[in-house]
Amino acid sequence: MRIADIGEFALIERLHGLVAMERPDVIVGIGDDVAVLSVDGDQWLLATVDCQVEDVHFLRRAITPAQLGRRALAINLSDLAAIGGYPLFALVSLGLPNSLDVLWVEELYHGLGHEARQHGVAIVGGNMTRSPGGIWVDVTVLGRVRRDEVILRSGARPGDLVLVTGQLGAAAAGLQLLLDPELTHVVGDPEPALTRHFTPTPRLAEAAVIARSRQATAMIDLSDGLSSDIGHICEQSGVGVRLWAAALPIAPAARAIAAARGEPPWNIALAGGEDYELCFTAPPDAAASLAAAIQEQTGALVTVVGEILPAEAGRWMRLPEGDAIPLAPRGWEHFKPV
Amino acid sequence: MRIADIGEFALIERLHGLVAMERPDVIVGIGDDVAVLSVDGDQWLLATVDCQVEDVHFLRRAITPAQLGRRALAINLSDLAAIGGYPLFALVSLGLPNSLDVLWVEELYHGLGHEARQHGVAIVGGNMTRSPGGIWVDVTVLGRVRRDEVILRSGARPGDLVLVTGQLGAAAAGLQLLLDPELTHVVGDPEPALTRHFTPTPRLAEAAVIARSRQATAMIDLSDGLSSDIGHICEQSGVGVRLWAAALPIAPAARAIAAARGEPPWNIALAGGEDYELCFTAPPDAAASLAAAIQEQTGALVTVVGEILPAEAGRWMRLPEGDAIPLAPRGWEHFKPV
Repeated sequence: MRIADIGEFALIERLHGLVAMERPDVIVGIGDDVAVLSVDGDQWLLATVDCQVEDVHFLRRAITPAQLGRRALAINLSDLAAIGGYPLFALVSLGLPNSLDVLWVEELYHGLGHEARQHGVAIVGGNMTRSPGGIWVDVTVLGRVRRDEVILRSGARPGDLVLVTGQLGAAAAGLQLLLDPELTHVVGDPEPALTRHFTPTPRLAEAAVIARSRQATAMIDLSDGLSSDIGHICEQSGVGVRLWAAALPIAPAARAIAAARGEPPWNIALAGGEDYELCFTAPPDAAASLAAAIQEQTGALVTVVGEILPAEAGRWMRLPEGDAIPLAPRGWEHFKPV
Repeated sequence: MRIADIGEFALIERLHGLVAMERPDVIVGIGDDVAVLSVDGDQWLLATVDCQVEDVHFLRRAITPAQLGRRALAINLSDLAAIGGYPLFALVSLGLPNSLDVLWVEELYHGLGHEARQHGVAIVGGNMTRSPGGIWVDVTVLGRVRRDEVILRSGARPGDLVLVTGQLGAAAAGLQLLLDPELTHVVGDPEPALTRHFTPTPRLAEAAVIARSRQATAMIDLSDGLSSDIGHICEQSGVGVRLWAAALPIAPAARAIAAARGEPPWNIALAGGEDYELCFTAPPDAAASLAAAIQEQTGALVTVVGEILPAEAGRWMRLPEGDAIPLAPRGWEHFKPV
């Protein structure tokens, strides 16, 4: 049985069982994007790792090394934001072909350093190895979270509203623009979508407002796509969900590309990954004031896009016409079964 | 200028400058194998990352996945041991070809889990990505060290003695046996050398005795080879060194292979990497009692192999005949300039 036959999530599930270990100092372990660890003091330690692989996550000819450096760190910072934490340190593990130009590696570090300074992260170490294949950049980020401010994926309750920051589908639109430059004249200004694709912005400031409010019941960052990522909240909270297609804050470029292709605009917003926006849930009486606080303190758009249901009600999206369709995870998965 | 033109250590030096950041919570940052970080509490946080890459560090046909899993974790534990710390948590980041068998990955995790349980480490997370090339296993380990027990590379002083645990050259002999099975009848029993090559033993128990004694002035683990690794202590302590060839505790298999090839036996002990023994320095009046304490409490052999000199005296090895030859780093370096 090949990995491609069962897919990433089933494989993680199997491996989890092999190394599971009950320990009081492991608050959240394998299976989540971020490990939550108790060392000492009044805060928990956070640890997360994410990798950018050539020809899987990036094409060397399409992205600059500085963009790649920023991106490789930003996606980890987004994971910490999604749990209500803040980053402190990063370790950078590189696989590099022998023939690679030293300037390329220095530019990568310029990008890493830029993103690190912007978010108060110290790059404290790493590793470098020769890669017989392509480049990969594996970044580990350590951070902290106040014990009373941590936001897990498991706290959503029926009746809660579902909110997202920013706009959806921009990163996916950027990727489409790279794959098919003909689309450029469809979208007008391609820059916002391309920028979002190359160098996503981790929503640390927004996460800090949400965490301090203590009103969010669950949170995740949108790395795989809303339909897939909200599924993680549903599984771990034991709930269902109804998203509202008409409410989705779809990025203009995504909307334009969908229109040019005669597709409904919400497809790209649901299935397009890598937006790195935050998706969170909050009780209905708290959602509006929380959204307003985030917008006021960070300038970020916040939109209510659906509601949490009991588990037995299932997972749905209500179309603008009023019909509901089953919400299938359609985001990014490695080793995708075909 | 290609990476291969300047080599690993020069590249790290250049990158260090690009992201250097003075922060009071970073006790030891880029350039060392282990980052030492101040979060809170009376201990420092340790973080290290090391990677095993197919066709660079291992051949898929030569090592079992369980051995690879143990090895990938053990080499990181060895780094923590070398600073006087103990491990707590590990994150495992994998690059896997789509065609890989699920059983292979499960066996890898069996090995990781085995090594983790043996040393009280909880595997708390990681990442998994498709690799278009070969397999790589990138492991991050987090640990702790008491502030008053940390042993850095920078504390060696002229007059200190140099000590090593265990025997040298065993892992290199194991590798030679794999590359040239004809050598098997030269060494008698090949198993100890092969085992050391496939699954090194991190010297955590020995390191704990050394750290608690507070008598070691500097320490490093022997990953690249004694001649290269003692060089790191010399650079960071600002000292020179004289090793004694006749005193080196050379593994029987390494000695036998050297004899069969008509080479001096200390070559393989100096230049052969991956022994993951500890090399440490201590004042002469403390060295004997410290060595005895380690042997008594762990059963490990401990040998005095040389002495620290002033920096201007240089780095030497005294041959059994009494002549001294310059000690050149001849251990493993990635992207080796040729």
